[in-house]
Amino acid sequence: MTTFDPAGLTPAQARAMIRRGEITGPTTGFCAGYAQGNLVVLPKALAWDFLLFCQRNPKACPLLEVADAGERSFARFAPGSDIAKDIPRYRVYKDGVLTEEPTDVSAYFAERDDLVSFLIGCSFSFESALLEADIPVRQIEEGVNVPMYNTNIPCQSAGVFHGNMVVSMRPIPYKQVPAAVAITAGMPRVHGAPVQIGAPEAIGITDLAHPDFGDAVTIRPGEVPVFWPCGVTPQAAVMASKPAFCITHAPGHMFLTDVKNTALRF
Amino acid sequence: MTTFDPAGLTPAQARAMIRRGEITGPTTGFCAGYAQGNLVVLPKALAWDFLLFCQRNPKACPLLEVADAGERSFARFAPGSDIAKDIPRYRVYKDGVLTEEPTDVSAYFAERDDLVSFLIGCSFSFESALLEADIPVRQIEEGVNVPMYNTNIPCQSAGVFHGNMVVSMRPIPYKQVPAAVAITAGMPRVHGAPVQIGAPEAIGITDLAHPDFGDAVTIRPGEVPVFWPCGVTPQAAVMASKPAFCITHAPGHMFLTDVKNTALRF
Repeated sequence: MTTFDPAGLTPAQARAMIRRGEITGPTTGFCAGYAQGNLVVLPKALAWDFLLFCQRNPKACPLLEVADAGERSFARFAPGSDIAKDIPRYRVYKDGVLTEEPTDVSAYFAERDDLVSFLIGCSFSFESALLEADIPVRQIEEGVNVPMYNTNIPCQSAGVFHGNMVVSMRPIPYKQVPAAVAITAGMPRVHGAPVQIGAPEAIGITDLAHPDFGDAVTIRPGEVPVFWPCGVTPQAAVMASKPAFCITHAPGHMFLTDVKNTALRF
Repeated sequence: MTTFDPAGLTPAQARAMIRRGEITGPTTGFCAGYAQGNLVVLPKALAWDFLLFCQRNPKACPLLEVADAGERSFARFAPGSDIAKDIPRYRVYKDGVLTEEPTDVSAYFAERDDLVSFLIGCSFSFESALLEADIPVRQIEEGVNVPMYNTNIPCQSAGVFHGNMVVSMRPIPYKQVPAAVAITAGMPRVHGAPVQIGAPEAIGITDLAHPDFGDAVTIRPGEVPVFWPCGVTPQAAVMASKPAFCITHAPGHMFLTDVKNTALRF
């Protein structure tokens, strides 16, 4: 008898299974130690503005890789990958409206040759570093999605893209806050240090119990809510601009890279 | 009697003096503690490829800021600045050939509205951190330009831009090499950690006494040559592509920003 162990898969194995349609669910816990990434695919006409938006807001939008227009592989972070098939579930937007959640978007890449794919760092990477340091990650303990909040922190605009920063929140025991800051500050390619510690109202968050995205989590006595820049920020900026066409990953259904989280520190 | 003290100027004061034509020489030692940057100005048609080249080669090409097309100010790193006048000396290239070294390029910005300005991090920032830690910076001691070498390390290509990494070399006393690595690794926005320590031939450098750019410096007994990614890399890649039009700063004549070197750590 064999047990399916997603943490033990290599990223190439996991991508192959996803490509064959054997995995269609979230990738949380897959390929222990390897970085996962957010996907945004835009027509070339919007790509300059989006690349500039990411360059100007690197904490919320840490770019890991940008493929050439029409390229269907992240050649540097995952040689041999197929961007159009290696994510378990995609979201397709037309004029800013979600039209479809397919498991394969190769038809769109076949239809047009101007699609530019962006791979953006994901907090899964720094959460694994926190867990190694015995710092709790509440939403993993509780088996829910991380709570995310809109803030009053403006992003630097770029062309058609603008908006405020979205943050994720993790309650950290107050004695471990300095370690959590130091660990994540050392990983700038996956959001880096927190933007706020302990004073949600200072960044325009009034009700921790009702996040704007994801799920609420328990904050225990002696714990401090700590807020990190979140990869939903670029997606929110893209959606707000109502692009004629856009593909993203479905939440939690990430792109698995061949690069280890530790390699993202340097 | 007053003595001219360039280190004591604020960046805004120094930019104003440069703008009035009162300073036309190199900016080494200006505005102590503040980051200086490399300038590359390209027509919008080439800007996507160049932005992608920088994104793919962040150690050699650490982008600090990209202005909007036609914008003449680095609004984030130096509010109120004038990109076309605030550098003591520029270089203008046409079809890849250096045609002029003016102190003002506002005529070119007036002539066309498609120019995109890139501000790229500079090793002056990490040298000031090394000096603070009592680590010697030989070319400053000897009053010459830093030695720079072509290597066999290929950059990731992007569109028309390709080439090998150019590195700068500083001889470091062997006991201080770990500190020099740690200090610069903590400053990824100004080139970050070295790419090679002590084995120049491993990256294709055969003769330290004859650098490809800059000047040779003395390597004393007990010192190790340490090689860092160099901001000449993007300029070399641009020149190799022979763009129809390009403006850069003249070597050593940098853009003075309002951002402190220490702020680039985070």
